Amino acid sequence: MTARPVIALLTDFGLQDHYVGSMKGVIAGICPDAAIIDITHDVAPQNVRGAAFELAAAWPSFPPGTVFLVVVDPGVGTDRAAIALRIGSTRFVGPDNGVFDLVLQSRHADEARRLDNLGIQRPTTSVTFEGRDRFAPVAAWLAAGTPFEQVGSTLTSGVRLTWTLPRIQADRVAGEVMHIDRFGNLITNVERGLWPLHRPPAEVWLGECGPIPVVRTYGDAPEGSLVAVFGSTGRLEVALVSGSAAGATRARRGAAVHVVPGA
Amino acid sequence: MTARPVIALLTDFGLQDHYVGSMKGVIAGICPDAAIIDITHDVAPQNVRGAAFELAAAWPSFPPGTVFLVVVDPGVGTDRAAIALRIGSTRFVGPDNGVFDLVLQSRHADEARRLDNLGIQRPTTSVTFEGRDRFAPVAAWLAAGTPFEQVGSTLTSGVRLTWTLPRIQADRVAGEVMHIDRFGNLITNVERGLWPLHRPPAEVWLGECGPIPVVRTYGDAPEGSLVAVFGSTGRLEVALVSGSAAGATRARRGAAVHVVPGA
Amino acid sequence: MTARPVIALLTDFGLQDHYVGSMKGVIAGICPDAAIIDITHDVAPQNVRGAAFELAAAWPSFPPGTVFLVVVDPGVGTDRAAIALRIGSTRFVGPDNGVFDLVLQSRHADEARRLDNLGIQRPTTSVTFEGRDRFAPVAAWLAAGTPFEQVGSTLTSGVRLTWTLPRIQADRVAGEVMHIDRFGNLITNVERGLWPLHRPPAEVWLGECGPIPVVRTYGDAPEGSLVAVFGSTGRLEVALVSGSAAGATRARRGAAVHVVPGA
Repeated sequence: MTARPVIALLTDFGLQDHYVGSMKGVIAGICPDAAIIDITHDVAPQNVRGAAFELAAAWPSFPPGTVFLVVVDPGVGTDRAAIALRIGSTRFVGPDNGVFDLVLQSRHADEARRLDNLGIQRPTTSVTFEGRDRFAPVAAWLAAGTPFEQVGSTLTSGVRLTWTLPRIQADRVAGEVMHIDRFGNLITNVERGLWPLHRPPAEVWLGECGPIPVVRTYGDAPEGSLVAVFGSTGRLEVALVSGSAAGATRARRGAAVHVVPGA
Repeated sequence: MTARPVIALLTDFGLQDHYVGSMKGVIAGICPDAAIIDITHDVAPQNVRGAAFELAAAWPSFPPGTVFLVVVDPGVGTDRAAIALRIGSTRFVGPDNGVFDLVLQSRHADEARRLDNLGIQRPTTSVTFEGRDRFAPVAAWLAAGTPFEQVGSTLTSGVRLTWTLPRIQADRVAGEVMHIDRFGNLITNVERGLWPLHRPPAEVWLGECGPIPVVRTYGDAPEGSLVAVFGSTGRLEVALVSGSAAGATRARRGAAVHVVPGA
Repeated sequence: MTARPVIALLTDFGLQDHYVGSMKGVIAGICPDAAIIDITHDVAPQNVRGAAFELAAAWPSFPPGTVFLVVVDPGVGTDRAAIALRIGSTRFVGPDNGVFDLVLQSRHADEARRLDNLGIQRPTTSVTFEGRDRFAPVAAWLAAGTPFEQVGSTLTSGVRLTWTLPRIQADRVAGEVMHIDRFGNLITNVERGLWPLHRPPAEVWLGECGPIPVVRTYGDAPEGSLVAVFGSTGRLEVALVSGSAAGATRARRGAAVHVVPGA
């Protein structure tokens, strides 16, 4: 028995309209056995970087062979390329606008193609809803077993984004807030490996606010205190125990964060 | 092998309560193989027209044989009829309050029945949650293969709604905003066929705001400009490139829209 | 044919981040046949009582054998126990913080165990995301057929919560608002059996606001009127016909409710 194919969806469509449902209807018509899993549809409209962040955070949790269908696409209907990538048996389908960029920082693509085989797309493609008419059918056909090379012609280079990287200085790491989640956790661009773990204790400063102790998990500090933890994606996060760090500190995406040696 | 049956859900229940999950639990107990797909659950509470709009927009994307389960039902527990419709192999289950009206404008029902066979409903039906106790089990039994005629007795006529239709005048089409989506796109009741496409270019006026050029897709105009496109359901939409037309124009549902010959 | 196993999810993760999707990705890798159903993910952050309410309301709608995966867990990563319960063939997986308390008021657990078998958890467990690394894999292995006793060692007692119970007085029942739903319905802790139904008519007072008539369903009273109904979980609810009782009365959770004999 082959396991059911998995298609993971990530869009900025939100859930109040029929858009996500219509994409899933198209998938069900092509690959009825697929397990369709939502990563999120609440990426801010047209926020390609936000989508890249969520995809990079989620994809290691999915089984090999998953088809990731990512539609955050300000350029829908223009001549920006529509592409598919393959890393091992895992496939990625979406616009060529950098949305796969953080995944590609961690793993090289084994194969990249343009979606120029119209035979596996809906015959009358809406220029404003390629998610339904172009990306969803291609993802569904891939999940149903269509060989990767049939999506279209080889792509030699794609759009990459520039990200602010943390600066590693003599005795500190200078980064920034990269993402704020539903709990108000401030997720930074400082990854675990950047801080010399043989030199704890460390302290974190969020702008002028600090020192914030680095703890193992939220429950290791009293309610209402700011803490820094290395979160579930290996990034340093500033959190308020039983509360919202974003609410308490009013920090925004891009706010400066420093990690320094502890006292 | 028969493909997995598809049940598509559309309600005004929102996602913060257990209501949608409870309906799906009932379905899983009756038809565990069903692929359950959400169209949306964020129709404004008790907004039958909004549900009719989303259903009409979504249903052409689903495979034949889908069971559409629609529960936007201000009259729950009263003597309004509970019904099922059949168009070909596709089934629709919900209250008789006009929620299927826009689907029925495009296709006639082949069969319509009242849900008066209590044998395929939950034995103790809550008068406030027929979605769980009445509509969901009927939809699940239909998906599991129960013949359509077993849902109940024949229905000869149902509730229809009155919709404001666009007026086609000598040199213009006068319509209105019918729906506003998550992106702030203003979706009008002007369908593609109403405007003589052999007479482009056309311009759109949204009240006093215009002329708004009709373009092929959002990316064909600079960021921040208002454009009109024929969107993914074939309706004219007013959009702000990389922004929200609803936010920029403060237009509401019902706002007047005119399509006139271009300069 | 064995029916597909059902895993029902209930968290406070919200839907704007990848967290729920990542948990489902883990499940799909272990038990690809599972039907994954969301109860809700919009429990207020870290609101264990709210989660207990939603679980108790939803679980009777699910088929026997369902695995309920509940992750509302302010103590994530601390030494609070991670547990699994079994009631008949139905399993519950989550933190030992009272989230199963209302279920256990209605049914005794047949078996309770700690999740101390690390062999069915992810090897590198994040201390801030046990939902993904600990609870989701255990739930998926149970759904895939792993015997219950393999989750870990026997648990003899767990955390229970204290709930405000209604007081039954000579001629009245004194309760309170326990939960407010998406429609603004005020769901009280007064259950159907508490009010002597052989003594109708009854009236309800919400603080100083009343008398509110007890009706069979919303449609039995004119639009804009406050009514009280015994809702879909058997609890008395105060509702505004075609509107929001919470909005109209500004009542909050904990507001006093009295049921008295009618005039």
